[in-house]
This record gives sequence, C-alpha cells and structure tokens, in this order.
Amino acid sequence: MRAVVLRDKRMVLRDHVPEPIPELGQVLVGVKACGICGSDLHFAKHGETMLELGRQMQGSSNGGQMIDLSGDVFMGHEFSAEVLEAGPDTDAPKPGTIVTSLPVLLSSNGFDPIFSSNTTIGGYAERMLLSAPLLLAVPNGLDPRHAAMTEPMAVGLHAVNKSAIARGEVSLVLGCGPIGLAIIAALRRRGSEQIAAADFSSRRRELAETMGAHVTVDPAQGSPFDTVKPAVVFEAVGVPGIINDVFRRAPTGSRLVVAGVCMEPDTVLPFFGTAKEINVQFVLAYDAAEFAESLRAIAEGDIDVAPMITGEVGLAGVGAAFDDLAHPDAHCKIMVTP
Amino acid sequence: MRAVVLRDKRMVLRDHVPEPIPELGQVLVGVKACGICGSDLHFAKHGETMLELGRQMQGSSNGGQMIDLSGDVFMGHEFSAEVLEAGPDTDAPKPGTIVTSLPVLLSSNGFDPIFSSNTTIGGYAERMLLSAPLLLAVPNGLDPRHAAMTEPMAVGLHAVNKSAIARGEVSLVLGCGPIGLAIIAALRRRGSEQIAAADFSSRRRELAETMGAHVTVDPAQGSPFDTVKPAVVFEAVGVPGIINDVFRRAPTGSRLVVAGVCMEPDTVLPFFGTAKEINVQFVLAYDAAEFAESLRAIAEGDIDVAPMITGEVGLAGVGAAFDDLAHPDAHCKIMVTP
Repeated sequence: MRAVVLRDKRMVLRDHVPEPIPELGQVLVGVKACGICGSDLHFAKHGETMLELGRQMQGSSNGGQMIDLSGDVFMGHEFSAEVLEAGPDTDAPKPGTIVTSLPVLLSSNGFDPIFSSNTTIGGYAERMLLSAPLLLAVPNGLDPRHAAMTEPMAVGLHAVNKSAIARGEVSLVLGCGPIGLAIIAALRRRGSEQIAAADFSSRRRELAETMGAHVTVDPAQGSPFDTVKPAVVFEAVGVPGIINDVFRRAPTGSRLVVAGVCMEPDTVLPFFGTAKEINVQFVLAYDAAEFAESLRAIAEGDIDVAPMITGEVGLAGVGAAFDDLAHPDAHCKIMVTP
Repeated sequence: MRAVVLRDKRMVLRDHVPEPIPELGQVLVGVKACGICGSDLHFAKHGETMLELGRQMQGSSNGGQMIDLSGDVFMGHEFSAEVLEAGPDTDAPKPGTIVTSLPVLLSSNGFDPIFSSNTTIGGYAERMLLSAPLLLAVPNGLDPRHAAMTEPMAVGLHAVNKSAIARGEVSLVLGCGPIGLAIIAALRRRGSEQIAAADFSSRRRELAETMGAHVTVDPAQGSPFDTVKPAVVFEAVGVPGIINDVFRRAPTGSRLVVAGVCMEPDTVLPFFGTAKEINVQFVLAYDAAEFAESLRAIAEGDIDVAPMITGEVGLAGVGAAFDDLAHPDAHCKIMVTP
C-alpha cells in the first residue's frame, strides 16, 4: 500500500509499504482523512532535537521513545478512518463504520503512541491499525474530514479545562493557528464571555472571530496587553520570547497556559513572574474523556470546524503541504485524504 | 537618632537622622529587633537592576516605586518594636506594648512599602513609624527577636498555601535558607507527612531537620530527584538554572512553587515543561491573614524560630553582617537589635 514517510527531513511518498496485519485487539482501517499538525512540522524539522531533549529528561514516560531518524518515520495522528477488518478474536464495529481514536496503538508489546514511529503506521497512509477498545464511532453521519478535527479540538479543550477559567474572566489567546482556534472554540463553548485573540495574520484573526473570539488584536499595532487585561493568557505560538513578554506585560495574578510547543531554549526574567505572582500551566494533549467530548461537540454542531480546513491534498501532496504550512497567512489546517 | 542606610551599595551607620514624627494614623515605635533579609542583600547589590526591571514591567503596582540610589536608602522590613507615641487623634496600643506589623506605612499621601525608601524609615534604625490600623500586639510575652521572625515565616506560609499541597503529597524544598526553612516549618504545621529538603550546606540541612524536614539531601552527592519523587517542589534558591533543572528532573505533573527571587535572566527548555505538564506558581510575600497567623504560630509555640537566629548585632554591626550573610554555611538569620 502507499504511505508518506519522513525521510531526511522531507515527506516522501512510498508506493510499497507492507500491508499492516491486525493482531488480537487491533483493527485494520482505511484512512479517510488525516490533518497535518504543527507538531508534525516540528518533528520533521527538529526531530533530532526533540529526541535528544526526550533523552535528557527524567520522570516522563515520553522520554523513552526510540526512533531512528536514519530510517523512514511514519506520522499522522489526527485521523478518521473506515473499519475494514478486525484482528483475530477481536470485537470491533462492523466494516464500513467510520471511526476515530486516541492516537495510541495497543499491541502484545505494550502500547505505541501513533505520532512518529519507524514501525507504527500513522494517518498519512492508505491503511493503518487502530486499537479496538479505543475506537469511537463517528456519529450523525459527520464528514470524516470534520471527524479528523477531533484530535486538535481536544487539545484546545484540554488547555481550557486546565485553565479552570470562569465564565466572566477575560482571556487572551496568543496565536490563532489550529491550537489557538481550538482554544477559542472551547472557551466559547464553555460560556466564556470575553475572549480576545491576537495574531499577526489578518486571515487568522478573521478565523478567530469565526470560531468565537469577541475581540481580535493585531500585535503589529501594539501589544495586546495595552488593550486587553486578561485573567488567563493562552500561549499558542511556541516561539522563544513569548513567555517573558507575558510575564512583563500581563496583569498581576494572571494565569498563563502554555499550549504552544517551543523546542528551543527560552529566556525569561523570573523577577517579573515573582512580582506578579504569575501561574504558568504547561499543557500537553488531552485525556480520553476530553477526546470523546471533542468528537461529540463537533458531531452535534456545537463547534463548526469547517472554516478551519483550508486545504485538502492526497498522499502525493503531503510534501508540498508541509512546505505550504510554513506560511501562516495561506493556511490553517490541511486535510490529507488518501 | 541613629539609622543604618544603604549608600553606594554599602550599609552605613548615620548618627543624625531626623527624628520621625507620627502624623494622623501613625505611631512612633522604638525598634526592638529587625531581621536581615536576603532581599535586602539583593537590593543592596542589585538595586539598580531591580528598579530598572520594575520600570520595564506593566500591570504591577510594584512597578511604580521611585527610589533614588544616589541618595541614602532606608531598609529593614522584618521588625518588632515598642510603641512610644501615637500621632494626633490616633488610637494605638499603649506605650510600651510590643508590636509587629505588615511592612506598609499609611500616610496622607497614600501608602509606602517599608522595604527600601529614601524617606520611609525601616527597621535598621532606633525608631520608625508604623500604621496604627496595621499593628499587631505581640502576645504571650514572646521574645521580640522571635516576633521579628513573623515576616519571613509568613513568606513560607504563603508559599505553602499557594501550593495547595495535600498532607500525603511528597514535597521537596530546594534551598534551606530562611525562606526554605520557613516553608519547611509551614509544611510541617500543615501536617505534611513527607518533606524532603536539599542544600549544599550541612549546617543548613541540620536546620532543615530541626524545622521539620523528614529527609535531607546533599545535592553535591547527586540530584535530589534521584531519591525524591515530589508532587510539589519549592524553589527557595533564586539563582538561574534551578527552574530548568526542575523541569528536566521532576516527575510528570509536578507543581513548582518559585519562592526564590532571581534577578537575573534565566533560560529554560519549555519542552520539558510541556512534556510533563508542569505547573509553575511564582509567589511573593503574603496577605494580612497569613502574617497574623504566622505571629500566632510563633507565639503559641507551634513553630520554634529560635534555631534560625544564628547571630545578633547592633546598628554598628549591620554592614559586617551583610557581608557575613554571603556565606551560607556561617549563618541563617542575623537579628539587628538597635
């Protein structure tokens, strides 16, 4: 079958990947749609650094991933798919059912994250394996491309849940890429009454309003903190310098939720944090309940993800799509439909 | 009267400071004891940087302090004192009463922190002004030198309150200077059952055990995180590099309370924080209730501060005491008794 792999920092289409065979508890599915995530771009570009940082780290289960970057790497963790065939003695939805799943593959060896792997195939492929116990049937005849947005929208929901923001509290979302937009949608759904969003791109600011921001700010016109006095700041940019700028400019007692993934060293002045008693919550991913809630919110029309999907490519177009996503004005989410 | 002032980064005894005169709502007191705080050492050494950082900062009431470092600066904010004379039309405890107070002076111009000021006299003086509504009478005949420990112990109590630590959660206190020790005492008083403390100084590790630590670790023998898996880490060192080391080594989901005051830029790898969903709470000072609770805990014998007081000097000895406190093995808290 065909799959796109990361090879020498480029996404390359392979025509003859061995067909995956489901074992006990697994299900073979045909990928219907898979969104390209910023973390995939990060990994393609900075994979060596990410793996090195993982090795340096104690106390995290993420630290132990073994990936050989000199070999092909499968990626794609924002997917929806059609059930084709269950493994031996495995209960699964009937063939033809459209499903999505937490990006984790259970196997006789334990479990593998479906994120980047030399062996576990992800969503940039015609077919892949999923774990029967983790499958969620996509309800309401939801478009599989929209179902594939479950994962990034769950990331936003998790960030908002971790913030414990109250309805009346002012929020400021820095960066209106897919994660910033997912945060805005989750804030709006939670009943947040004062959501401000900042992005240099006018197109992204428009998307922010579409997804629920009450106010948008162009940082090129001055610091968002000159006009917004947030109780909670969501950082969804992930480049060095943002955290310190928040420390310097945010109101006393602010909570900062760091949802952006910054792979580089970042310098802060702790004195600013001290003087204002700032709280910083780093967030990652979501739990199973948040993932399921995210699918439900999309399927029931509480969140309309359609405006976020700005492009669609086949497997042959993944390489070019990775390049295109480097330009924030042109795109938000590109959906791969194998 | 006599007072010690900061002049050209040195503490200098002045013999002829004009006698302070209480206005409405103020009380003239005779200082009985005033502890030398690490933040005083910081200010003496890095005052220009602190003021510059304050100027760069938006959104904090601390940003507006105007201090002229080319003039003499009064300091000393950990004091106990004896009431001498109330201002006009001012209700105050009767002369001779031993009191302490939040280090804030209310006046017809608003309020001044009693921390570092060209005009508001602090505790490194024979006499000073306090605010009648803020006075707390020292109960139970408590030694005024112990009453002067109310302020640093309140800093520790506040840090512990902000951590919201539960009794069964493991804590690790990094740095066993006065603030680290105050945190340990507050943890113990809260019923914490597993308190670990780390310091390079064997004398400070002994003090940590005296104040309530269950385990102490010498970081020269290896990272404390090799032996302790804390839910909450209290950073009470305040030098660059510690926060990133916690990010790198602490368990997933840890909460880091930053009680140390670091005036220099500090570099972190946000990726570590993200991978572990770390929460960072910067803390500063305390509220009025915590200050009062701290005095009560000392006066009622819940916390014995005596072991923390390792030296005593008169006003003439303040300059040398500032120098001595640069050597952590020799001293914990030096009390100035004018």
